[in-house]
Amino acid sequence: MKKTVVGIIGFGGMAAYHYDVLKTHPQLSFKGVYDVNPERGKVAKALGLVSYTTKEALLTDSEIELVLIATTNEVHKELSIEALRAGKHVICEKPVTLTSQELLEVMAVSKETGKIFTINQNRRTNKDFILMKRSVEAGLLGEVYHIESRVEGSRGMPSGWRTMKALGGGMLYDWGVHLIDQILFMIDEPITEVYCKCLSIEYPEVDDNFRLHLTFESGLTAQIEVATNNYITHPRWYVLGKEGTLQIDDWDCKGKIVRCIDKESVWEHEIVYTKAGPTKTMAPRRPESIETIELSEPLDVVDHLSVVYENVIEAIHGTAPLAITPEQALKVLKVMEAAFKSAGLI
Amino acid sequence: MKKTVVGIIGFGGMAAYHYDVLKTHPQLSFKGVYDVNPERGKVAKALGLVSYTTKEALLTDSEIELVLIATTNEVHKELSIEALRAGKHVICEKPVTLTSQELLEVMAVSKETGKIFTINQNRRTNKDFILMKRSVEAGLLGEVYHIESRVEGSRGMPSGWRTMKALGGGMLYDWGVHLIDQILFMIDEPITEVYCKCLSIEYPEVDDNFRLHLTFESGLTAQIEVATNNYITHPRWYVLGKEGTLQIDDWDCKGKIVRCIDKESVWEHEIVYTKAGPTKTMAPRRPESIETIELSEPLDVVDHLSVVYENVIEAIHGTAPLAITPEQALKVLKVMEAAFKSAGLI
Repeated sequence: MKKTVVGIIGFGGMAAYHYDVLKTHPQLSFKGVYDVNPERGKVAKALGLVSYTTKEALLTDSEIELVLIATTNEVHKELSIEALRAGKHVICEKPVTLTSQELLEVMAVSKETGKIFTINQNRRTNKDFILMKRSVEAGLLGEVYHIESRVEGSRGMPSGWRTMKALGGGMLYDWGVHLIDQILFMIDEPITEVYCKCLSIEYPEVDDNFRLHLTFESGLTAQIEVATNNYITHPRWYVLGKEGTLQIDDWDCKGKIVRCIDKESVWEHEIVYTKAGPTKTMAPRRPESIETIELSEPLDVVDHLSVVYENVIEAIHGTAPLAITPEQALKVLKVMEAAFKSAGLI
Repeated sequence: MKKTVVGIIGFGGMAAYHYDVLKTHPQLSFKGVYDVNPERGKVAKALGLVSYTTKEALLTDSEIELVLIATTNEVHKELSIEALRAGKHVICEKPVTLTSQELLEVMAVSKETGKIFTINQNRRTNKDFILMKRSVEAGLLGEVYHIESRVEGSRGMPSGWRTMKALGGGMLYDWGVHLIDQILFMIDEPITEVYCKCLSIEYPEVDDNFRLHLTFESGLTAQIEVATNNYITHPRWYVLGKEGTLQIDDWDCKGKIVRCIDKESVWEHEIVYTKAGPTKTMAPRRPESIETIELSEPLDVVDHLSVVYENVIEAIHGTAPLAITPEQALKVLKVMEAAFKSAGLI
């Protein structure tokens, strides 16, 4: 099968990463890049890529079928629309656009031109996420009623566009989009309530930390947090089911499930005398009433950018439906807008 | 000094605990009890206490100066008022009353009779709390902007009154009252926002789990959770400051502070390639830019019921102000009412 020829608009760190991990992919051929910064064009040239001096030059190159848009977020909309109108299929970096209204405009052009529009919003294949999702769906925790998803660092945000509101900075747009997408991908229910606290610890323009609470129609809740000033981190995942609890510590997938194996006679009417006084409610369980399942990395999961590109190639050829649809991205954007509203930021 | 003579109304597990740990206290003399259940009267008799057959008999015993009310919660109000009107000082078990309106009625009678009314709402002397509070107040974390306080078990709630709404059951009344009291005792600021989710995992009438979010005037936030179905627990305390993070694992006070000691040059522009893909924001800190302080039990703290009683004795004699005031309990009740309202329960 003929290779799909790719052009890149915005050749920063993320696009360079795409190129690096996919340059030898048998179905892809990276032709060239356009970047507003000529220095990045030189870098591309040194890699053997064409450096287009205008975006029009790239978009009128008839060899290019698929355009990756990896610029700062505030120009995703206009560039996506231009690329679609130039007859290209488009992969846009996340967050797809800054508002749901912008995305609706892009979706209309995708429909009008018949060209595919997708988003690299794919932490759906992250192994820690799959491990959590499989454990829940296998029923190991009984009915699940609460999910906590956290990504935390301690170095603050990198300087540059992430700190600027006009460029779509802040952690809701940067990491929130992934963590919300994972939860919506897993929980196929309407959201009934959104509550969010955004913090600006270091950067007054944007949320460099946020704490988001979602309630779904069934009553299931999710707490999603991204933080950049946490010197001690919470676990990546913490999930409560009626029959057990799951914890996954980090991206390396180390974790455990502790679950009830004796529903009868678990309650002894003793009072436990702790260092902080007596308690009946918080007395520990008898060890024989629970079991611990150690968790580890699922080895069958392919978590790679190629998953996104291979799906787009299949969708172009009509052999598979698009996996990451603009409709899904729209739902995520609407949750983010509700979060900003709850936090008093719009 | 003459011993203070104590009578007990409601001689269940909690009152028996008071008696047991204070029966040899040099300033206290426990005279007798009244309980609606005659079996408990027999238990009291076997301990050498008077078993009053009516509460009036106890309240008209002129030897008794101080009455402990340790009944179920729904009768705290009427019993407190009766005891105050009978000329007794009163220690009421927590939660003081079911509503702030009820407490206001008790406070009016305390004022009218000139008798002291206090509440055994004193996890303020718990060592884990003191350790956290001291660490924060010593500035070890820099400016603190978020506090998480959790108490979690996995055995569900004990059956009985805790599961019944009419008797003041549920975890907000049972444990929430303490955790809210600790935070309000520490943070002397108005609360600007209360958001709460109450869950009824096993007992439909009451909140057997809750998740409460408080926002204070300065922007400081607190997340308070009590859970009875968590097979893996979060740390007891987790506190975020601008310069460090504190974690205390449990009542035994094991924990640590990790704090920044190099504010300059902490940001390297590298991208870290994790199991879940590349990240710049979540790259780890260089070890030399942080320090870890191990925490352990503060040995100078007296955490004992005697603290509450000794303060009441001093307050009776006018040698010290009352430590746990009904005004403080009123604030806590108002937060609980706002929590129930946020959760859609009132």
